Amino acid sequence: MTNEAPLKINKERLWSSILRMAEIGATAKGGCRRLALSDEDADARKLFLTWAAEVGCSIKIDSMGNIFARREGIGSGSHAPVATGSHLDTQPSGGKFDGPLGVICGIEVLRTLDDYGIKTEKPIEVVVWTNEEGSRFAPAMVGSGVFSGIYDLEYGLSRTDRSGITIQNELERLGYLGSEKPGQHKLDCFFEVHIEQGPILEANEKTIGVVTGSQAQRWYEVTVSGQEAHAGTTPMDRRHDALVGAAQIISYLDDLARSISGSRATVGMVEVSPNSRNTIPGHVFFTMDIRHPEDKVIADMTSEIKETIATIAADLKLNTEVSEIWEAPALKFDYSATQTIREAIDNLGLSHMEIVSGAGHDACQVAHIVPTAMIFIPCADGISHNEIESASISDVEAGCNVLANSMLRHAVRIEETGGP
Amino acid sequence: MTNEAPLKINKERLWSSILRMAEIGATAKGGCRRLALSDEDADARKLFLTWAAEVGCSIKIDSMGNIFARREGIGSGSHAPVATGSHLDTQPSGGKFDGPLGVICGIEVLRTLDDYGIKTEKPIEVVVWTNEEGSRFAPAMVGSGVFSGIYDLEYGLSRTDRSGITIQNELERLGYLGSEKPGQHKLDCFFEVHIEQGPILEANEKTIGVVTGSQAQRWYEVTVSGQEAHAGTTPMDRRHDALVGAAQIISYLDDLARSISGSRATVGMVEVSPNSRNTIPGHVFFTMDIRHPEDKVIADMTSEIKETIATIAADLKLNTEVSEIWEAPALKFDYSATQTIREAIDNLGLSHMEIVSGAGHDACQVAHIVPTAMIFIPCADGISHNEIESASISDVEAGCNVLANSMLRHAVRIEETGGP
Repeated sequence: MTNEAPLKINKERLWSSILRMAEIGATAKGGCRRLALSDEDADARKLFLTWAAEVGCSIKIDSMGNIFARREGIGSGSHAPVATGSHLDTQPSGGKFDGPLGVICGIEVLRTLDDYGIKTEKPIEVVVWTNEEGSRFAPAMVGSGVFSGIYDLEYGLSRTDRSGITIQNELERLGYLGSEKPGQHKLDCFFEVHIEQGPILEANEKTIGVVTGSQAQRWYEVTVSGQEAHAGTTPMDRRHDALVGAAQIISYLDDLARSISGSRATVGMVEVSPNSRNTIPGHVFFTMDIRHPEDKVIADMTSEIKETIATIAADLKLNTEVSEIWEAPALKFDYSATQTIREAIDNLGLSHMEIVSGAGHDACQVAHIVPTAMIFIPCADGISHNEIESASISDVEAGCNVLANSMLRHAVRIEETGGP
Repeated sequence: MTNEAPLKINKERLWSSILRMAEIGATAKGGCRRLALSDEDADARKLFLTWAAEVGCSIKIDSMGNIFARREGIGSGSHAPVATGSHLDTQPSGGKFDGPLGVICGIEVLRTLDDYGIKTEKPIEVVVWTNEEGSRFAPAMVGSGVFSGIYDLEYGLSRTDRSGITIQNELERLGYLGSEKPGQHKLDCFFEVHIEQGPILEANEKTIGVVTGSQAQRWYEVTVSGQEAHAGTTPMDRRHDALVGAAQIISYLDDLARSISGSRATVGMVEVSPNSRNTIPGHVFFTMDIRHPEDKVIADMTSEIKETIATIAADLKLNTEVSEIWEAPALKFDYSATQTIREAIDNLGLSHMEIVSGAGHDACQVAHIVPTAMIFIPCADGISHNEIESASISDVEAGCNVLANSMLRHAVRIEETGGP
């Protein structure tokens, strides 16, 4: 390196791009609704491609719709790119930061390298991963998952939303069914900036979370079946009310997770059939999201959950089906990539702490095949997956500075023509 | 009366009309989906008008879309009509009998009078009431309710479905916003044939239920509000999970109704927001349908329910809104109209018992302004509001025979030219 002083990104430019992206699918309460592969998601991708073109990137798209925007290196021989990125899709009522922050920080790193006139030995890429949220198409992180060989391509393309539309249908409709085979494209290493989405950094008054790994997760789909009948005429002792069964299960899950330290259990989606005021529900579909930092604990928890669901169903004379649709073991990020982040933080003089990610991220998938590390910044009140999700401009700046210096360290600075 | 032998309807003709009507909105499992004022409901109304024209009826439609098909009487002076009827709309996954049976029995009575060449002193009318089910537009029985002065017209027309479409919008679209003022049209008396929708007649092996009245009912809409947050990162003790609150309320309601003899409590409709697998639900909307044969008991029950909802909300740091959207006190049907039914049953030699209706019916509204009585027949396993809802041809025949003889008694037979 020709200069020990850390690179500094342009915080106003970065912030303005975050606000520009948030206009796409903007909601009345200040959040965003850009479901994966919706028209809004396509608009967000188009804006990304415009920004990538402005910094002279070439573009590759793979057949999961993952986008790779590449700034060439000038080293001799062929180098895999030092990569960063995240996702542009959001929750149905999501915020401005969950996803876009990591993508736009990547663009800001490229802009900053141009400001400084820095060339690198290795190429640098900014990646947009398809369907990270999983709220329209389950499971989550399916674009990065196929890229990382966790799912095969056929599985990824055939995921359907609740109306039966597949990811392949939407990629074709929007023109993002690219020609490159997912994973064919090798990466040197991968960094991702993300808001913490929880309260820990804020409570500890730290600017940066050095993410050491992520907790184990399991996703289930549960169907409870009883018998539809008239609400006015069917005596209580003759009912087979699927919703009462579902309600008992939902209450139990909350109690269980509160009783096991570090665990989390959430029922986020419920569909009641026939969903009529004066008919006893015959069928209820719901999802379960179960997490714990230790694989052994989550295994015991999910066994107990399945047994209790069976007991509740038997008591109420209901039938239940419980399908595990996704499972991710606890993960540890690469030591040396994480160490790079620590060094950048020290050089920038930022407060920091180690943290385990409560959420899954694209980086957790990519970590299976490439040295990977993550940089967290605080979000207000720890709230995410909510339109009021918020982060401060100074924390966003700090996270992007850590990213820029970490990536530059790996990409190797070999030429510099000026400074900002 | 010129003849003590009871009138007999044509059961094959009646049955065939029931099956013909059930083709409209037919579902894969043998039921019907004809939501109020949907295209399917309009098709059912059209078929009714065809049948009414075949027996020479004149038609009036009021501004709630209630249809009155009239067979003239030949008595001197002006007589209000002896009326019968029910509804053609169904539950989202309803059966073939709930509603259409009462309308088609009315048509069959007119066909039978023609078979016998019977003229009556008073006119006879068959009525189709708008939006009895209440599953698309709440509350239920709104067409007969406006007719009976329980609701004013503006209230009736402004009821909206969950997508914001009003009854007036749909009446205009389908051409059923009639010119007659609801209730302007006087009735002499009103009879309604309906399946019991419960298990009591079947358990007692009786063919006819003489309905003495209906239980008290109250409908509520409840909104539980918490805070949307990420399912993976939000510790259990920092959650404000609206769905956990709703689940505790739903379980409690079921327990409460099981503990109070004769009471019923049902949550039939639930909507979760944002309804995403990995987001803690911020808002849940659900309905409550509470019933008991005694006004005093239902008043105590609903007070307790409101207190318990407030306690659950406070414990979980949630906000709740509970709105009573409809209330119907316990009702007693007219003694003399009910006595007419008893006499017809005796004359026909049918087994019977007294019964209190668990459901609300159009007859329960009309009973506020006109002498009214109801005739129940059994349905298989007491199941209704279900596609498998079923009744036997012999019970349908018996119910229609009771109706024909009861109506003829009130309309007064004054001329007869032959027999079938």
